[in-house]
Amino acid sequence: MSVLVVGSTALDSIKTPTASRPRLLGGSASYAAIAASFFGPVRLVGVVGADFPRRYIQLYRRRKIDVEGLQIKSGKTFHWSGEYEANMDNRRTLLTELGVFENFTPHLAAAHKTSPFVLLANIAPSLQAHVLDQMSKPKFVVADTMDLWLNIALNDLLALLKRVDGFVLNESEAHQLTECTNMLHALRALHKLGPKYVIIKKGHNGALLSAPDGLFLSPAYPLRRVVDPTGAGDSFVGGLMGYLANARGPIEAKIRRAMIYGSVVASFCCEGFGLTRTSKIKRADIEKRVNELERLTRF
Amino acid sequence: MSVLVVGSTALDSIKTPTASRPRLLGGSASYAAIAASFFGPVRLVGVVGADFPRRYIQLYRRRKIDVEGLQIKSGKTFHWSGEYEANMDNRRTLLTELGVFENFTPHLAAAHKTSPFVLLANIAPSLQAHVLDQMSKPKFVVADTMDLWLNIALNDLLALLKRVDGFVLNESEAHQLTECTNMLHALRALHKLGPKYVIIKKGHNGALLSAPDGLFLSPAYPLRRVVDPTGAGDSFVGGLMGYLANARGPIEAKIRRAMIYGSVVASFCCEGFGLTRTSKIKRADIEKRVNELERLTRF
Repeated sequence: MSVLVVGSTALDSIKTPTASRPRLLGGSASYAAIAASFFGPVRLVGVVGADFPRRYIQLYRRRKIDVEGLQIKSGKTFHWSGEYEANMDNRRTLLTELGVFENFTPHLAAAHKTSPFVLLANIAPSLQAHVLDQMSKPKFVVADTMDLWLNIALNDLLALLKRVDGFVLNESEAHQLTECTNMLHALRALHKLGPKYVIIKKGHNGALLSAPDGLFLSPAYPLRRVVDPTGAGDSFVGGLMGYLANARGPIEAKIRRAMIYGSVVASFCCEGFGLTRTSKIKRADIEKRVNELERLTRF
Repeated sequence: MSVLVVGSTALDSIKTPTASRPRLLGGSASYAAIAASFFGPVRLVGVVGADFPRRYIQLYRRRKIDVEGLQIKSGKTFHWSGEYEANMDNRRTLLTELGVFENFTPHLAAAHKTSPFVLLANIAPSLQAHVLDQMSKPKFVVADTMDLWLNIALNDLLALLKRVDGFVLNESEAHQLTECTNMLHALRALHKLGPKYVIIKKGHNGALLSAPDGLFLSPAYPLRRVVDPTGAGDSFVGGLMGYLANARGPIEAKIRRAMIYGSVVASFCCEGFGLTRTSKIKRADIEKRVNELERLTRF
C-alpha cells in the first residue's frame, strides 16, 4: 500500500570533522520518502524553489516516488547547514534559510487524500495537522517531530498528538516533553497525549517501541564508520512506514519488524553524506542487514 | 561448577537525590559473588576488618557462598562513599578509606586453586594477576576493571589481559583504553590485547559481546525505578559467570544467554540500595525477567 510522506524538502550543506559537502539533497521528507521507497509506492508532499537541482527530482523519480505533491515555487529552496563535532553525535546549525519553505502549505492532490499510510515527517505541527485535515480516513498515521516544535509550537503539537496513531521522537525530546527522567514513565505520559504507538529513538543505542501489546527493545545496526548521521532519524521512520504499509498482517503484528527495517535503512544513511549511500543500495542489501541483526540479537 | 570470585569487599555509604544509606555491604566481590550464587557454588576471596558486621558474613553464608577465602584482619574494612546526581548516571566519590584493603594480598586455599571459573572482579590488576599465579589451569577466566586502573596501573592491566579469556569494561573505559571512538574498532583493538571474549557494558543501554562467532547486542532490562545503580556492573559480570559455570554446553554456545542473566541480576541490583534488593530475590524471579527480555526483544 502507498505511503504519503509530508515534510521538508531541502538542500543540506554538511560539515563533519573530516569533510564537507555543499547543497546535498536533504529535508525530513526526502530522507523518509527514499527510505520508504524500498518497500512500495511513496507519495511525496513538499516544496522546493526554482534552484532545486533537476538531478534531485530525477533521484526521487528513480526511486519511483510520486512527486505530484512536490510544489516548485519561484524563490529559493530551504537551505540548512550544520557541522558535526568529533563524536558525530553533537551538531550545531550554521545556517537556516527557509526560502520557499517559509510559506509552505501542503496541498494534497485528490488521489493522495485516500493514502492509507501517512507519515508526517518532521515539519511544523500545524502543517502536519493541515495534511490530516485533507485526508480521508487514513489507516495509520505516524508523526515525527523535533525539539524546535516542543519549544515554539507545543500547543499545536499536543493537538496533533490526539489525531495520530504513532508518535516518534528522540530520547531527549521525550524527557523534555514529559518531564520524566525514567523512560517507562515517559512512555506512559506520551500515550496519555494520544498515540497508541510511541517510538523513542536512541541513535546508535537503538529504539524503544511502546505498543498495546507491550514494549519492544529495538537494536541499532552497528557500524564500522559513521560518515554523516544527518537524516538517520527520518530514514528510520521512513523505512518503518514503508515496511508497515507493504508487509502483510495487522499493524500490531508487524510493527516490531518494521522498526528493524527502519533501523537498517538508517544505518545505510549514516554511511554516506546525505542520501548518497542510501540512494545506491537495493532491497537485498536491506534484507542482508536485517538477517544480520537477527543473528546479532539471538540468545 | 564453582566460580572463584576475587575483588573488593567493602562498606558503602551511598547518597542518592532522595535518600542515603550508611555502611551497606559493598565491594565488587560482594556484588559479583551474590549475583553468581543464584546459579551454583561460589568461593569468595577478599579481606575485611574487625568492624565488618557479622550480618554481612551471614548474608554471604545464606547465599551458600564459601567464605574460606575471606580474610578478617584487625583494622577497618574498606569504606567507600559516593553521591549520585539527579539522573542517577553520574556519581562522585565522597570518601575512600582503604583500611585493611590497602595491604590485601589474596591467598587461595588449596581447594580453591582448582576452581574452573575465575572472576577477577574489579580490583588492582596486579592483585588479579596474583590470583591467576596461584590457579591451576582454570577453564575460563574473566577480568573486570575500572578507569582508575587505566590511569594508574595500565601496564599491569595490559599484562593481565594476555592471561584472561574474557574482559569486561564499560563504554568510556573502552574508548580510553583503545583511543577508538567507534565501538567496533575499539572491540578489535581490545581483542588484540589478548582476550577472546570482550564485553562492553553500556548501563541502561545494555551490553555488547564480541566473541569468536561474532557480535551479540545484549539488551538491558528496562526499569520503572532506579534506586541505586551501585554494583550493577559487578552484579552483571557475577550473574554472567554464575550462569556460564553452571549451564550445560560449551562457553561459546551459552555466553549470550549468560549476558542476559547477568543483565537481569544487574536490573534487580538497581532496584534497591546496595545488595538489599538482590539479596531478597529467588532464581525464579530471575527466570521471569529473562523470559520477559525474550518477549521484549523478539521480532
